[in-house]
Amino acid sequence: MSDQKLNSIGKSYVREDGAEMVAGLSEFVEDINRPGLLYGAVVRAERPHARIIKVDISRAARAEGVACVLTPEDVPNNAYGPSLADQPVLCSDKIRYEGDPVAALCAESWEAAEAAARLVRVEFEDLPAVTDPVEALETGAPLVHESHPTGNLVTEGKVIRGDVEAGFAAADLIVEERYRTQAQEHASIEMHICLAEAKPDGTLLVHVSSQKPFGIRADLAKVLGLPISRVRVISSQAGGAFGGKHEIMLESLAALCAMKTRRPVKFRMTREEEFRASTVRHPFVMDYKTGVTKEGKITAVQINILLDGGAYCSAGPGVAAKSALMGPGPYRIDNVRAEFALTYTNNGFAGAVRGFGATQTTYACERHMDLIAKRLHMDPLELRRRNAMKTGDPSHSGDEITSCGLDETMDKASRAVNWDAIGRGKKSPCGTKRRGRGMAAMIYPVAGFGKATPSAAMARVNEDATLTVITGIVDVGQGANVILRQVAAEELGVDLDHVHLVNGDTAVAPFDPGSTGSRIAHLGGRAVKAAVGKVKMQLLEKAAGMFEAAADDLRIENGEVFVAAAPERRRPLADVARACHRDSELVLSEAATRSTDIGVDKSTYQGKGFECYVFATQCAEVEVDVETGEYRVLQLAAAHDVGKAINPMNVEGQIEGGSSMGYGLGMMESIRMKNGKVQNPSFLDYNIPTSLDAPVESIPIIVEAEEPRGAYGVKGVAEPSVNPTAPAILNAIEDAVGAHVTDLPATPEAVLRAMAAAHP
Amino acid sequence: MSDQKLNSIGKSYVREDGAEMVAGLSEFVEDINRPGLLYGAVVRAERPHARIIKVDISRAARAEGVACVLTPEDVPNNAYGPSLADQPVLCSDKIRYEGDPVAALCAESWEAAEAAARLVRVEFEDLPAVTDPVEALETGAPLVHESHPTGNLVTEGKVIRGDVEAGFAAADLIVEERYRTQAQEHASIEMHICLAEAKPDGTLLVHVSSQKPFGIRADLAKVLGLPISRVRVISSQAGGAFGGKHEIMLESLAALCAMKTRRPVKFRMTREEEFRASTVRHPFVMDYKTGVTKEGKITAVQINILLDGGAYCSAGPGVAAKSALMGPGPYRIDNVRAEFALTYTNNGFAGAVRGFGATQTTYACERHMDLIAKRLHMDPLELRRRNAMKTGDPSHSGDEITSCGLDETMDKASRAVNWDAIGRGKKSPCGTKRRGRGMAAMIYPVAGFGKATPSAAMARVNEDATLTVITGIVDVGQGANVILRQVAAEELGVDLDHVHLVNGDTAVAPFDPGSTGSRIAHLGGRAVKAAVGKVKMQLLEKAAGMFEAAADDLRIENGEVFVAAAPERRRPLADVARACHRDSELVLSEAATRSTDIGVDKSTYQGKGFECYVFATQCAEVEVDVETGEYRVLQLAAAHDVGKAINPMNVEGQIEGGSSMGYGLGMMESIRMKNGKVQNPSFLDYNIPTSLDAPVESIPIIVEAEEPRGAYGVKGVAEPSVNPTAPAILNAIEDAVGAHVTDLPATPEAVLRAMAAAHP
Repeated sequence: MSDQKLNSIGKSYVREDGAEMVAGLSEFVEDINRPGLLYGAVVRAERPHARIIKVDISRAARAEGVACVLTPEDVPNNAYGPSLADQPVLCSDKIRYEGDPVAALCAESWEAAEAAARLVRVEFEDLPAVTDPVEALETGAPLVHESHPTGNLVTEGKVIRGDVEAGFAAADLIVEERYRTQAQEHASIEMHICLAEAKPDGTLLVHVSSQKPFGIRADLAKVLGLPISRVRVISSQAGGAFGGKHEIMLESLAALCAMKTRRPVKFRMTREEEFRASTVRHPFVMDYKTGVTKEGKITAVQINILLDGGAYCSAGPGVAAKSALMGPGPYRIDNVRAEFALTYTNNGFAGAVRGFGATQTTYACERHMDLIAKRLHMDPLELRRRNAMKTGDPSHSGDEITSCGLDETMDKASRAVNWDAIGRGKKSPCGTKRRGRGMAAMIYPVAGFGKATPSAAMARVNEDATLTVITGIVDVGQGANVILRQVAAEELGVDLDHVHLVNGDTAVAPFDPGSTGSRIAHLGGRAVKAAVGKVKMQLLEKAAGMFEAAADDLRIENGEVFVAAAPERRRPLADVARACHRDSELVLSEAATRSTDIGVDKSTYQGKGFECYVFATQCAEVEVDVETGEYRVLQLAAAHDVGKAINPMNVEGQIEGGSSMGYGLGMMESIRMKNGKVQNPSFLDYNIPTSLDAPVESIPIIVEAEEPRGAYGVKGVAEPSVNPTAPAILNAIEDAVGAHVTDLPATPEAVLRAMAAAHP
Repeated sequence: MSDQKLNSIGKSYVREDGAEMVAGLSEFVEDINRPGLLYGAVVRAERPHARIIKVDISRAARAEGVACVLTPEDVPNNAYGPSLADQPVLCSDKIRYEGDPVAALCAESWEAAEAAARLVRVEFEDLPAVTDPVEALETGAPLVHESHPTGNLVTEGKVIRGDVEAGFAAADLIVEERYRTQAQEHASIEMHICLAEAKPDGTLLVHVSSQKPFGIRADLAKVLGLPISRVRVISSQAGGAFGGKHEIMLESLAALCAMKTRRPVKFRMTREEEFRASTVRHPFVMDYKTGVTKEGKITAVQINILLDGGAYCSAGPGVAAKSALMGPGPYRIDNVRAEFALTYTNNGFAGAVRGFGATQTTYACERHMDLIAKRLHMDPLELRRRNAMKTGDPSHSGDEITSCGLDETMDKASRAVNWDAIGRGKKSPCGTKRRGRGMAAMIYPVAGFGKATPSAAMARVNEDATLTVITGIVDVGQGANVILRQVAAEELGVDLDHVHLVNGDTAVAPFDPGSTGSRIAHLGGRAVKAAVGKVKMQLLEKAAGMFEAAADDLRIENGEVFVAAAPERRRPLADVARACHRDSELVLSEAATRSTDIGVDKSTYQGKGFECYVFATQCAEVEVDVETGEYRVLQLAAAHDVGKAINPMNVEGQIEGGSSMGYGLGMMESIRMKNGKVQNPSFLDYNIPTSLDAPVESIPIIVEAEEPRGAYGVKGVAEPSVNPTAPAILNAIEDAVGAHVTDLPATPEAVLRAMAAAHP
């Protein structure tokens, strides 16, 4: 594989939408206008837990410019959700968190819609609320969903490998600690938005900014009681998603309004609504207990994970299971027990967020590794090296790891920051500043577990040998389109400029489960390669006749086909395409890639859990002002094993972007709640990292442990870059100040509190 | 085939866009709006033949609201055309007819664009014009295209079968006559219109009302110098086409303006421009010489056809060849010589029009048959019966006619009007009125000749067992969509409501040559059936496992799958679809239908010319007022052999619509030219039939001679219904008044002139 000569793969092509993004020309849903457009607004609960006594829409319905008002009676099937159908489109009996929708309407302008929404009168009977996941599981806690058979416990499960008791018995040291992570907003710059049109032919057309247009389609059909063939979802350019654009948010309201008024209707969330009503990263409470020999070999790990799911289930069960499977970290451990429990509370509901549960457990695991190293008086890097997974090792679900570049990421990241020379004790020029070093490693899986969903693509060669690829895969800002085009160009042997990608339209693309689970480069790449490969075969067979040669003896490069053994015998591929077009049945293909070997035993979560695994090591050096608690990251080296980097610039962008999101979780972002209501629903009060918060020196490093299952060895990169950053930097801060920082985010105040506790 | 139980085929489903059409809700290109839309106008020659000395756009470019002005220098490749690239997008050196475009511009409103267009100053040097096709071929005639190697003769050819000289020698009677037909407008209610958008990603998106979106795409790519993968053409709802929406008219101008201004641009023709600048039906001059025995057996026919192509070639060569191949009519004739010649003139250029050359020769042939019958003192029906083609006979290109319902159409049409009892001599109550009877028969081929272009379709089964069919085939008003959905519903065994069709978008559909040649029901139907059949096979194989039965033993009907031998063992097809979706690689298919046996020897036009043949007989009774020449059609029985009527109501609509167009050609429509300019460019002065011109009694009759090559026996219907009407009615008028009417259209004045000539 590695000795193959590659023309398009491995090159840092600028993504096709880069220039238009920078110039402000991209067409987001916000930019799609239609004559007669109506504008929507949602009336939300504004309290965490209450029974609905009465909803009076009469004043709103009569208000200036209002076209229609929706109540629960307008919703054909008023229950949906990606895992459990526990969520109403509009609440009819009770509300479960402050963002719950009670009514919706549309009017001639945003202003008219918002003004009318304020005229809807709702009478509530408040109920006691539960906002802590530990309390939610206690007897007598208020029930969020009275009809859920296990009360506030949504679901639970456990990963079991080997014998943890025997493992602990073999340990020289057992280290136990509790870790907590907080909620985090996706903070996409583009907020939730959609535009619905009820076409005269009976089709519902919905423009969305979504990661899962086919999922939106299925849920819309269910909620609206329509055959799927009547629902067309087009996913437009997205201004960020990060897991937050996974499920119906406003689409069914827009669709119902459009069907009622026969006019196009747009709904969007304000930034405040994003904070109050969209999903967040699950807050976790994690108890780690690790047995280790005095040589640093881990003998057993027992993990107990409690997730706060908030008011609705969303993707919670998947997040919980993945967090447990990734919880023991990128280490060869023969005895594992990782239990998880997901709760309902009256908090804003949690869902898929980049990192998907592993962000939280990577935080805990890597903080815990440093704690163990400290107890063993061992270099944290050395402890990790002694336990690091290798190619051929079993994963925590027991399947074989078919490619593992973890050692190389440790080597390269530590060398990049000069690990042995930096950090603790070194005084910086100014007297109150201390430097520290920290690291974190990571394992992350590619593609979702337990469901072998296919990626699919079609490839069509036009009369002039240009290529059109059609796929349901969507680019939500991560640059998926350019890398899929690179795969197509490589496979056919044409210039990238001659590959056009059509995607995100459920009416025309083959089914795709969406841009989730860091799957696109790996599964999407395989599908595109297979589809183009089929078309290429048709071209080569046609060319074989034209050259009087065997198809196997022909090659295509730079838009020309030639005889491999006599390269002067060549002609433009366009000649062959034209001939195919004239004579053959069809130059059009389809291909789907589904891994049939994926699946786990749900009693132990053992089996083949995932497609393959990526690994990473991030090493940080920080400088902390011990008088103010302020700090900055001097260096952050992030070495990520991605299999094969299709577009290195894109991979580096993903690494840096992910690290920034991890920095936000660890250092800055905090949703402040009071009486079940968000207190800081704006970017003024909820701070996400900007370029000013970036490391002084950011060192993205690409490691390529090529994966046999991937096209050209590709694994993936999108999500996992978020995971090791917070623990690496926290470990460095702790190294600098010699105090155990437990509060997230680790603000300067939290650092000072930790120092005060350590040196009272 | 005929004993097969059919559920969806053969039922008169209302087309899915019927209600919205009636309610004015259909979305035509005119209804597509975009923010920032610009409006185009074209500066045209307004004289038939001239050299361009100078074009001054300066005042227009400075005019209020003008965004850009195009001149020939803006056109990357300024030559195109469906047969020959003889047509400029904008004329640079000379103009060849009054509608030739000299410049184009776009502005903030239609009014601003039209006002600015009037400010373009063009200096011409007029050239002598040639406007008669006979004169065009004379030595010394002005040359329309100086560089064309054969002068004003665009192309010529001949159909040769048997030995015409021997055939004439064996004849008892030889009848010779010249026939002429005039130009005819398509007169689509929706005029030419397009909307071009230069998308930020470099794609050109063009919304058109077109029969051939893939042809428009190819021509646009060529003219604009773009790779085909960058050009996306979407054919919207069309308000009629009739062959007139075959080729680029305004699309390249709109595209160039959009690329220059980076704003969406709409161009449309006014009704006047339609008359002056769009294509018309070729005027024909036809010399028929037929040998016949005294028993009425035709021994030979010699036909010479001259076509006036106007200023550009367009689809002329195809029209010419088809007219010659259909010229001898639906009769078994062993000795045929049919020569054709296509000329350039400075008239408006002719192109594809419903009937495509055969309309003109059917007119001549069927008028000629009546002349022969008169000379033989034989009933015209009897003469036709004695020569009528039968299944198994050779066509005029020598291939076997695999299905022929001609006899049945003669029986049914003549019986419907009570042929023996009506017509000549019968006085009507009012003393100046005379009645007459007339008939015409017809042969017409399905799909284009000499090019075995494929039709293609994809079929996708959604999770709920609803079906999405994707095809490049477009419905231009004839109801193609509903019949393709019927084929899909029949093949899968689901309800018509559960079949959704996506079509007309070149970016997502497999290549299709367009809605031409009456091919859709036959080739398109075969493609849809094949695609759905492949998907159905996947479902049955999945179901086989679920039923523990062989796939062959299962049936699907009404959305349920069951064991044929034990129908109580059944389950919803949706269960199977869901299981496929969960487990299988893909439920998605593609299929293309191309007939590989199509092709003729161009020296004699012998070979397999077409897919198959349809036949028809139309019988008319008219009442003529011999004092005023006014007449009305009392009965028109139109019996058409369509193979199998997928949707009988649709077929009857096509028959009645086509007959109306034929009535327009024969009785009403005339483009009056003076100095190379149209004198009556409006529906006020150019009259097309309305419901008031319809026969008092219209009797559409469906004959089903099932065709082995067609899905469910289908042949087609769209074009040919136009062909027999004019000769049938003309023959009836002649029968009524006993005078030979030679002028078309046969207005009352023309009838009076003929009567005056016959009885001076």
